[in-house]
Amino acid sequence: MKNCTETFQELFCLNQELGISLDVSRMALNASDIKGFEKMFSKAHAELERLEAGAISNADEGRMVGHYWLRSPSLSPDQGISKMVHGSWQDVQAFAARMASGDQPRDIILVGIGGSALGPQFVHQALRAPHSKIRFHFIDNTDPDGMARELSAVDDFASAICIIVSKSGSTKETRNGMLATKFAFEKNGENFAKHAVAITEPGSELDSLALRDGWLATFPLWSWVGGRTSELSPVGLLPAALAGYDITAMIAGAASMDDWTREKDIFRNPAALLAAAWYQAGGGKGDKNMVVIPYKDRLELFSRYLQQLIMESLGKRLDRNGKEVFQGITVFGNKGSTDQHAYIQQLRDGRNDFFVTFIEVLADTKGALSGPIASELAALEVESGITAGDYLFGFFMGTREALSDSGRESITITVPAINEGVIGALIALFERAVGYYASFINVNAYHQPGVEAGKKAAAEILRAQHSILDLLSKVNQPKSILAISQEVACRPDIVFKIIQRLESVGRVKCASRSTLFESKYCLQDLKQ
Amino acid sequence: MKNCTETFQELFCLNQELGISLDVSRMALNASDIKGFEKMFSKAHAELERLEAGAISNADEGRMVGHYWLRSPSLSPDQGISKMVHGSWQDVQAFAARMASGDQPRDIILVGIGGSALGPQFVHQALRAPHSKIRFHFIDNTDPDGMARELSAVDDFASAICIIVSKSGSTKETRNGMLATKFAFEKNGENFAKHAVAITEPGSELDSLALRDGWLATFPLWSWVGGRTSELSPVGLLPAALAGYDITAMIAGAASMDDWTREKDIFRNPAALLAAAWYQAGGGKGDKNMVVIPYKDRLELFSRYLQQLIMESLGKRLDRNGKEVFQGITVFGNKGSTDQHAYIQQLRDGRNDFFVTFIEVLADTKGALSGPIASELAALEVESGITAGDYLFGFFMGTREALSDSGRESITITVPAINEGVIGALIALFERAVGYYASFINVNAYHQPGVEAGKKAAAEILRAQHSILDLLSKVNQPKSILAISQEVACRPDIVFKIIQRLESVGRVKCASRSTLFESKYCLQDLKQ
Repeated sequence: MKNCTETFQELFCLNQELGISLDVSRMALNASDIKGFEKMFSKAHAELERLEAGAISNADEGRMVGHYWLRSPSLSPDQGISKMVHGSWQDVQAFAARMASGDQPRDIILVGIGGSALGPQFVHQALRAPHSKIRFHFIDNTDPDGMARELSAVDDFASAICIIVSKSGSTKETRNGMLATKFAFEKNGENFAKHAVAITEPGSELDSLALRDGWLATFPLWSWVGGRTSELSPVGLLPAALAGYDITAMIAGAASMDDWTREKDIFRNPAALLAAAWYQAGGGKGDKNMVVIPYKDRLELFSRYLQQLIMESLGKRLDRNGKEVFQGITVFGNKGSTDQHAYIQQLRDGRNDFFVTFIEVLADTKGALSGPIASELAALEVESGITAGDYLFGFFMGTREALSDSGRESITITVPAINEGVIGALIALFERAVGYYASFINVNAYHQPGVEAGKKAAAEILRAQHSILDLLSKVNQPKSILAISQEVACRPDIVFKIIQRLESVGRVKCASRSTLFESKYCLQDLKQ
Repeated sequence: MKNCTETFQELFCLNQELGISLDVSRMALNASDIKGFEKMFSKAHAELERLEAGAISNADEGRMVGHYWLRSPSLSPDQGISKMVHGSWQDVQAFAARMASGDQPRDIILVGIGGSALGPQFVHQALRAPHSKIRFHFIDNTDPDGMARELSAVDDFASAICIIVSKSGSTKETRNGMLATKFAFEKNGENFAKHAVAITEPGSELDSLALRDGWLATFPLWSWVGGRTSELSPVGLLPAALAGYDITAMIAGAASMDDWTREKDIFRNPAALLAAAWYQAGGGKGDKNMVVIPYKDRLELFSRYLQQLIMESLGKRLDRNGKEVFQGITVFGNKGSTDQHAYIQQLRDGRNDFFVTFIEVLADTKGALSGPIASELAALEVESGITAGDYLFGFFMGTREALSDSGRESITITVPAINEGVIGALIALFERAVGYYASFINVNAYHQPGVEAGKKAAAEILRAQHSILDLLSKVNQPKSILAISQEVACRPDIVFKIIQRLESVGRVKCASRSTLFESKYCLQDLKQ
């Protein structure tokens, strides 16, 4: 067994200024293993330099990959981009200032999905103060019941703002959420356009709609920003600014992390160390799951945020040479110490098919921003000389130790507190680590070709449903699943599923119940 | 490639009365594979019969495993148990009736962790109505900042109820949460005991405390109920009844599923089919991750609930013969169609190291209980003849099809709607499947020995912290990490972590900054 103390000293990577550190000493690697990554790392480093300089790094989609310019616009290959980014900061701040309404509470409805919602959800969960005047409602799906719950919680539509986020402007779930929200505004006697804000690629369908209907505002999401790396674009900055978070600090935190992770010495570059540790753990094939456990309630959504960033970026069939590689790293997690009482039993005792990424937060509270009771609770002694925060720390350290003792690997990222700068830095750290790792395994981290297949198949299902309803409306007698299947040229098991749901929502009814595919159905309102 | 339609017909398992069905036809198994499980299944079936009859099935802890008696008390081995269960139903209902306060809203603070909180959280997320008068606040960790956020959201302490859930009555996180909550009540001029309710094992520390201080009420959690299977005990029933959910229907739903899953024909027993499918997919070793994707916002926490139930039950080092097996099945997921825009890229294109469990909900809304706008949104056409719910269905079907097309396995569980009965049935289905699977792989599903190691290690960390503070209070000069390490007999990397945090929370300060282990520290208030 390796000497923990020695490896810790060798591999501990600290940025004194940011107060952030990375400890990979509890992974199955040592300094000479890290040295072995130096060649791959220089190549990856050079690639990321080209990417930052404006290369078409998302080759399949013929796009530049510019999320680093969102915090360091001067890096961008042309002045136009730099100007646009600076302009967007001013526009976001000015809009937020205009909307700031003294002590009046305000509802903000954000409609988006995936990269257009998860970042704002994560950041709001991390930064929100108790008794905030801003009440967020996220509509991130096409579930009418879920939409109804969010919209029912809106207190005042007259002062509410609705932000619609879609880069392409044609995401169906988001379009549906927008229509539902519009319906709710109108039901409350409000003109939707006067409350609606679009964040979308200039020239998109959504952009045209916003222009045509005279929406309250529109903010740009540029082609060179991917959804999962858009948190530092208006997608993340606008809701953050409206909630009163310090977006300048968030941008600066990300920029500082970018500076740190441009370090050429792999031992002093935390993103490179992370990528190397991931590679070593999973043999460059993602053979170990990444379990993300932050010990702080505010970071509860960080694992979901990273799940999207990492799995959508790295989970690819083909490498950049077109070879089938079936890559990826599986990410999940919630928060400590809570997870200790859920799945950590398996981590400690069961399958050794993972490594943990602990996030340690040194401060007990956000100070004044957490409200007076937070300081009191942080000081409250639950036993003589021991606080609840001491216990949280103790459980983090204890769980980490218990895992090490049974040969389970872990990484620890330590941050001084939860604030805008740290959130920006954490996002930037993992974005860069993903960039390095993608280079190590030679995949394009910036496209998502697998998503299309599901969308296409969904469209086929909706077409089949349409055909079935059309067929049933034209005949005046019930038809069996098998008969329908033949007439609309769709597999009987698919027809069965469509009919089953249409029956449940009251659009068709069963006329004679028989075996699975012999039961006969007709339209609900067919007179028999 | 197998014929989907044929396998679907062969393996489709439907309970007409419950309206619940299971489809394992998209797993890599067919009818003859299922037949191959018949022998293992009879053995497992006999074991579960003995368990239900009161055998000491949790051998290591010398306990009966009685969660099935919670919904069918007449099965229990002695009349005393049956009486206690019936009595608890009456007590829960009577207490809820007593607390029902007309149209007045009420805050309910639930303090618990793991099995004592996740069930109520899942059920409340699944069943809550918009504009419910009951506002839940869950304290499920020992993070003082998280506690402060929950407690700051309590509107009225004078009418609030605080439920403390701990079977052993000595869980530290819960004890800390209780002390924080007590502090908040007292700060608001309220006597905590008058608002406090305990759910705990009769005779526990917590039970004694509640008795001594004259708490508002106490409900029993019996030794033969494990935390992760306690949702149908007072742990789940009390908060559900207070929120106005129909606990009789929830119990009945679980009982009906129990009846169904006692079926001896493996082809007609959905729990047995699930266990067989899990076994086949992961080679009896959990080699494939289980990704749980319900297409319904209300079920968003179901994956976390199952993650606890499955990973804590199956993630074991030793089998029942004491052989090292390192078992488990990894479970994660959130909700569809949202996840389509997050990690499903990897599922479709990347590593083929998982199977999906889709949960399909046929009804679009909970009807009247979802509020009037839910019905309107369910009917709203987002395109001609197409609703948001059609899209949700289309994305579920499309994603499932796209996964099948690229050779990825999936299971589909279809339920008619989200209501108390269905929630009870889903819980019971997976409890039984875990029981069968545990028998297949010969592990004790009802203990959690791996959790102790983390608790012990945490206690050591707190002792080390105490020793360090004690040492620093006795010397009047700063000491280096290395010197402290030697004096308190604790590894320097551990001392460093403890000191780093104590510095952050203002209890020690750095007197001279040097290398990692040479920096010198003293108490914050030491005069120099």
